[in-house]
Amino acid sequence: MCRFLAYRGEPVFMEDLVSAPCHSLVHQSLHAEEAKTGTNGDGFGIGWYATRPEPGVYRELRPAWSDENLQSLCAQVRSGLFFAHVRAATGTATTRANCHPFVQGRWMFMHNGQIGGYHTVRRKLEAMIPDALYEARGGTTDSEAIFLAALADGLEDDPVGAVARTVSRVSALMQAAGVREALRFTAALTDGEDLYAFRWASDGKPATLYWRDLGDRLIIVSEPLDRAQPGWLEVPRSCVLTARKGQAPALQCMDEAITRAAA
Amino acid sequence: MCRFLAYRGEPVFMEDLVSAPCHSLVHQSLHAEEAKTGTNGDGFGIGWYATRPEPGVYRELRPAWSDENLQSLCAQVRSGLFFAHVRAATGTATTRANCHPFVQGRWMFMHNGQIGGYHTVRRKLEAMIPDALYEARGGTTDSEAIFLAALADGLEDDPVGAVARTVSRVSALMQAAGVREALRFTAALTDGEDLYAFRWASDGKPATLYWRDLGDRLIIVSEPLDRAQPGWLEVPRSCVLTARKGQAPALQCMDEAITRAAA
Amino acid sequence: MCRFLAYRGEPVFMEDLVSAPCHSLVHQSLHAEEAKTGTNGDGFGIGWYATRPEPGVYRELRPAWSDENLQSLCAQVRSGLFFAHVRAATGTATTRANCHPFVQGRWMFMHNGQIGGYHTVRRKLEAMIPDALYEARGGTTDSEAIFLAALADGLEDDPVGAVARTVSRVSALMQAAGVREALRFTAALTDGEDLYAFRWASDGKPATLYWRDLGDRLIIVSEPLDRAQPGWLEVPRSCVLTARKGQAPALQCMDEAITRAAA
Amino acid sequence: MCRFLAYRGEPVFMEDLVSAPCHSLVHQSLHAEEAKTGTNGDGFGIGWYATRPEPGVYRELRPAWSDENLQSLCAQVRSGLFFAHVRAATGTATTRANCHPFVQGRWMFMHNGQIGGYHTVRRKLEAMIPDALYEARGGTTDSEAIFLAALADGLEDDPVGAVARTVSRVSALMQAAGVREALRFTAALTDGEDLYAFRWASDGKPATLYWRDLGDRLIIVSEPLDRAQPGWLEVPRSCVLTARKGQAPALQCMDEAITRAAA
Repeated sequence: MCRFLAYRGEPVFMEDLVSAPCHSLVHQSLHAEEAKTGTNGDGFGIGWYATRPEPGVYRELRPAWSDENLQSLCAQVRSGLFFAHVRAATGTATTRANCHPFVQGRWMFMHNGQIGGYHTVRRKLEAMIPDALYEARGGTTDSEAIFLAALADGLEDDPVGAVARTVSRVSALMQAAGVREALRFTAALTDGEDLYAFRWASDGKPATLYWRDLGDRLIIVSEPLDRAQPGWLEVPRSCVLTARKGQAPALQCMDEAITRAAA
Repeated sequence: MCRFLAYRGEPVFMEDLVSAPCHSLVHQSLHAEEAKTGTNGDGFGIGWYATRPEPGVYRELRPAWSDENLQSLCAQVRSGLFFAHVRAATGTATTRANCHPFVQGRWMFMHNGQIGGYHTVRRKLEAMIPDALYEARGGTTDSEAIFLAALADGLEDDPVGAVARTVSRVSALMQAAGVREALRFTAALTDGEDLYAFRWASDGKPATLYWRDLGDRLIIVSEPLDRAQPGWLEVPRSCVLTARKGQAPALQCMDEAITRAAA
Repeated sequence: MCRFLAYRGEPVFMEDLVSAPCHSLVHQSLHAEEAKTGTNGDGFGIGWYATRPEPGVYRELRPAWSDENLQSLCAQVRSGLFFAHVRAATGTATTRANCHPFVQGRWMFMHNGQIGGYHTVRRKLEAMIPDALYEARGGTTDSEAIFLAALADGLEDDPVGAVARTVSRVSALMQAAGVREALRFTAALTDGEDLYAFRWASDGKPATLYWRDLGDRLIIVSEPLDRAQPGWLEVPRSCVLTARKGQAPALQCMDEAITRAAA
Repeated sequence: MCRFLAYRGEPVFMEDLVSAPCHSLVHQSLHAEEAKTGTNGDGFGIGWYATRPEPGVYRELRPAWSDENLQSLCAQVRSGLFFAHVRAATGTATTRANCHPFVQGRWMFMHNGQIGGYHTVRRKLEAMIPDALYEARGGTTDSEAIFLAALADGLEDDPVGAVARTVSRVSALMQAAGVREALRFTAALTDGEDLYAFRWASDGKPATLYWRDLGDRLIIVSEPLDRAQPGWLEVPRSCVLTARKGQAPALQCMDEAITRAAA
């Protein structure tokens, strides 16, 4: 399990959310409260949109809490749309290539969850990725494979539908392989304009996800950055929060999309 | 604060103590129980004596819990005298050079504690190290500086006396600089034959230290590796455990040595 | 392209070959002479057999020339059979998991070469690895994939035949995909007792390989460790050097094995 | 010896100079042409001024040529004043804290050179740094010590004079210690507005330094980024290039400043 943060709104210094708040993401790397693992020290990553359509990315295998570069970068870079992620590995190596977020062209993705029995279905999952995208597979995680498979499933045209199709196909793979562990999928996705946040699990126990909408600033987090602040709402289980450019955030049910995809 | 382990006795695979026990040192790197900080993820180190008078050392800035090299090394290397240490930094950078144990010739040292107000007294502390030894200063920690200062204070001829002298001089430096925080010194020291374990603090609150004597095997640890095992004894505060080659371990009072040194 | 070294014989300190000679492997990491790339600074690895059937491994993504741990390890560990490898990446990331040697059970493998057009055939190559072995794929290199595919092709029973079969199948994959670049395969393989060194390329231009047989000590290297020493012989192109336990090293033609495999 | 680059002028993407040119700094990390060491693989760093008075810094111990984060950062960040440095260590460890540039408040410094006999004079050199600045010493290099000593020597008020004083004092230390090796000081310094580039050595053999003035853009480099471009000029030996904000770059003799300082 991991912890993450997504921001969209008025450009802010990334440190305002990543390291400054009392329960910032960097603080959560050492002291998460709502996760099974309190320590998220198996690498981290930050991805931000600035002047190019593609995001910048800084990923590192060291823990976030002691990384001077992360501090400096977050103090310097202002962005109107960025992701940050601290990792607690679930069976794959601690390498930069296994750190979130993952980027492909303009798209950026990060995940907090796990494919149960991943080792059993990994090859079949990777077979869902077409050759042209497979070249982009730099690591060995389930998360990166889901992202690439969703790209192949039409992410660019229909993000929620594509993710639902991929999640549905992965569930089917797991069932066929006799995996009993759950598929847990709390995730965030963006193309640099629209932002999507998913909270779903095959056993109804997805990792936590909260959001705070201040009108000109939307913050999505695994855990509230400061419980003294008003306005933190839980993303309900089995829901997707969609924040299209220029529109207010809206919730939709993910189960329906998955049922449609599985049909 | 940190966690450490020292072993002397029949050669054993290092993994038998470092990673295999239920509350092994690697486990303590993620879930320490008796330390102020539960996570000791700011690097680690292992030092062992094999066929040469000087120990081998493997130090790394990544957390111990995810390091494949540490696992492999501990599974392969058998040693009759070794140290292992997981670090929780107290103000200095996470680099290999700041990881314990520190080695100088045949001598090896590791520390769990802190010089209060270190930044205030650092230059004066370093001035206690003579030029010839200063070349060996590879990092920036208080721990390494204490070790080098103790070498200058006669460590090779009178280990306990030299450490007492250094601790006494550092205390005086702190006092002169108006430092109010404590000097905490829980540490282990060896020349490849004799083993010394110190538990002392200027405020009477040193970090925990335990030992277990099985006749042909002596284990010294920050926290018992398995509480179900019988025979873990606490090293009393202000004491030094001395285990000279071919002799039974013995406890002596460190305060007396310090008083003598200060006189 | 990379540089490597394999040793079998009387147990020696690894530093005697890895770092001490004038043109040691560590020296070659900075100043290779017979490689297209003079710098082999994209990580390194060392694997050695000691008291267990499985080898110990230390792999690191930093350059070999500045790694203090490698120096210490090689100064301490004596082994009668070990591999060392310095890497110059050819398109895959600099991570520990992409560093050689690769280990699976008792088997250890390292490679100096390249599958031309790897990105084109990578998925098909990985499809040659059965599920049970695929779990062991920790990195993304062509080299690791060849090793796992060869294990599936019967490496444990017939090492040379299995490698020939895999090489033949990879060649066929490349041809089917219209790849024009060569398949270059200079490699070493062992199960902890017998040692095999391959020098083959589809275009007849394999990377260099030398050996020196001192009766009780066999050294196989990409480049001679000291040209002033007598007895360095080139492994002829398209040949395999086989050094079975208790037998003198023997050369055999690899083309024949490949032709048989392709038949 | 190392290689570096400094830029001041119209904001540009850092990649335009750091990684894009045919003989970019990243290329020089692997294939320097005018340095004693062709490989500068012992870490690197980049520092840039953006919206704050203090620069951002990204330093890493891996070689620059394989660092994905550096590529991404340089593709995203536009700056009107930045430094980049690739390191070839001369006796101190490969750690982030030993990588250039060094930053103190608004000031940024990088160095290509060496204090001959550094180990002999290190303690005395460090004694030149007052307590208040000593806290900022994170590494162990001669370069960082010179920077901190120059700050103590009045860098903020009189940059060229302060550097001359420090260089003069270091020379005196070396002479007193009987060091025969040279003091070589090719360096760049800035406060975020004015830019200073030094080329001096006690034996008249300083490392190379070039500049190219395009009116609205000033580039200072160890080696020209593209020899096909017109306008690269050598900074003469024993000279300082000063580029004050809003003024044309000007050369002055450093020997005179040093003579004054030594008087």
